[in-house]
Amino acid sequence: MAIRIFLTGGTFDKEYNELDGTLFFKETHLPEILNLGRNRVPVEMRTLMMIDSLQMTDLDRDTIVHNVSRCEDEKIIITHGTDTMVTTAQAIAKEVTNKTVVLVGAMIPYKFGSSDGLFNMGAALAFVQTLPKGVFIAMNGRYFTYDNCVKNKKTGKFEEIA
Amino acid sequence: MAIRIFLTGGTFDKEYNELDGTLFFKETHLPEILNLGRNRVPVEMRTLMMIDSLQMTDLDRDTIVHNVSRCEDEKIIITHGTDTMVTTAQAIAKEVTNKTVVLVGAMIPYKFGSSDGLFNMGAALAFVQTLPKGVFIAMNGRYFTYDNCVKNKKTGKFEEIA
Amino acid sequence: MAIRIFLTGGTFDKEYNELDGTLFFKETHLPEILNLGRNRVPVEMRTLMMIDSLQMTDLDRDTIVHNVSRCEDEKIIITHGTDTMVTTAQAIAKEVTNKTVVLVGAMIPYKFGSSDGLFNMGAALAFVQTLPKGVFIAMNGRYFTYDNCVKNKKTGKFEEIA
Amino acid sequence: MAIRIFLTGGTFDKEYNELDGTLFFKETHLPEILNLGRNRVPVEMRTLMMIDSLQMTDLDRDTIVHNVSRCEDEKIIITHGTDTMVTTAQAIAKEVTNKTVVLVGAMIPYKFGSSDGLFNMGAALAFVQTLPKGVFIAMNGRYFTYDNCVKNKKTGKFEEIA
Repeated sequence: MAIRIFLTGGTFDKEYNELDGTLFFKETHLPEILNLGRNRVPVEMRTLMMIDSLQMTDLDRDTIVHNVSRCEDEKIIITHGTDTMVTTAQAIAKEVTNKTVVLVGAMIPYKFGSSDGLFNMGAALAFVQTLPKGVFIAMNGRYFTYDNCVKNKKTGKFEEIA
Repeated sequence: MAIRIFLTGGTFDKEYNELDGTLFFKETHLPEILNLGRNRVPVEMRTLMMIDSLQMTDLDRDTIVHNVSRCEDEKIIITHGTDTMVTTAQAIAKEVTNKTVVLVGAMIPYKFGSSDGLFNMGAALAFVQTLPKGVFIAMNGRYFTYDNCVKNKKTGKFEEIA
Repeated sequence: MAIRIFLTGGTFDKEYNELDGTLFFKETHLPEILNLGRNRVPVEMRTLMMIDSLQMTDLDRDTIVHNVSRCEDEKIIITHGTDTMVTTAQAIAKEVTNKTVVLVGAMIPYKFGSSDGLFNMGAALAFVQTLPKGVFIAMNGRYFTYDNCVKNKKTGKFEEIA
Repeated sequence: MAIRIFLTGGTFDKEYNELDGTLFFKETHLPEILNLGRNRVPVEMRTLMMIDSLQMTDLDRDTIVHNVSRCEDEKIIITHGTDTMVTTAQAIAKEVTNKTVVLVGAMIPYKFGSSDGLFNMGAALAFVQTLPKGVFIAMNGRYFTYDNCVKNKKTGKFEEIA
């Protein structure tokens, strides 16, 4: 069965608007990332939203939980901004117990050359195939369970709580 | 405990010699790849050789097996050219049974911009943390056991034998 | 005699802050750009400021004019944000008549991979060696005199006035 | 009038064959380079051959001279391997005197990420617009006349003869 990828935006997919010098979202770069990685794992992608996770509302989060819950796939990756990734992971864990869900993000936009996105996506695809049922966060080579993870706002790194 | 990475060369680490237009090996790009991926998993690297896997002799292969066997680490990644990766995996599996060993390569050199190396390395690091003891090949999002994997010479892709 | 390069910032040198997702200036990437281009023309670089050209004040502009005017070099390149590049060119032209001055910018930051900065810098270095005395703007393969150039705010492109 | 670009191959356009690990030519990357540079100078491209300049025969060189000579354009850029670039420049200079011809190459293939191709192409486009009639070589920010240029085989750099 294919791995389901839900796209929500985040740093991963930010682009530079050369007309006004701001960062914005156009469309996802996931197909490009998977193509560059010569990915051969069957995946099904669906864009749920394309936003900065600081802008994510409760309603947006409900949409994500709802999609994870109702889809038939048992292995699910969610691309997500890092700032509220843990909050969304916890919301999913409340409702979904019989699937392997991996949330993944990036510190640098894929389009900016020196992105960690390609590395993180490779890891997320590996983790979702091998981890047991549960909700996980995959960042920079590591994985965390939804209930033992926090983003350190000073360093930008994800850490265990305890 | 840190993950052990043994470096043997392969496409991963090929560079372009601008004086004579040939491809050659200088030194590994693994630290650069892990840095770009903002990797936070503790790793220990050691270069065993820096060669094209078509040039790999039985003696070279013995060196790899010996190092995998005698090191104290239980989780080991080996960067390796794709052409004889399966042969090396089989040689390791004959001698080593109590460790998780993941061989990983690339189709395009890391230095050539559009490399799958960053993606593959992210996946290899994830697989070595989550797969059980055994010898595996990790390429392009997938993993294979050493005894059920072949490189399709026409397409360049790794496939199950059966 | 070496070519003088005055650095003032602009899109050229913007970077992505991975802690808060904003764009900012740290230090110039010009040495990196010239190195990548394997530049062999002798240059002397000096950073005058490192700002977005929309933030440039009259005082900043005076600083640029003063430096162009007083330096002994006869061939001068100025890296500059595109939004007020023409204004600065006109200010220089009022005071400086016996030098070849080329202002150059970029539409995409150098660090963002798909930048026009490398191309523009190659062109600016060529133009400053071959154009007569005067003040010019070099963007995207073309050159314009300071008094016949405008940035089209809708398309982001530089055009002749008439 | 548009600038004519004749394409002959060279390091510029080399690619990596991921099936057998060799370098080869497929098609030119010039349109991609000009697009990345957001080039706005009208150009007309024509591929004459797509080869390593060490493989270039007298007949190939005749083809280039013939095309430069008979075309109506007065400003011509030729992409060319660096190893025999000077020989071709001299052959052109024997036959063509009323045009500005600029030969340009690269030390690193465009597809390999850290290429000088983008920088060199920006410079070539600037030089062809501003230099007088004659045959020139443009490499790494500098330009040389066809009769005072040699490639230093040890350093890979172009230098004046005297």
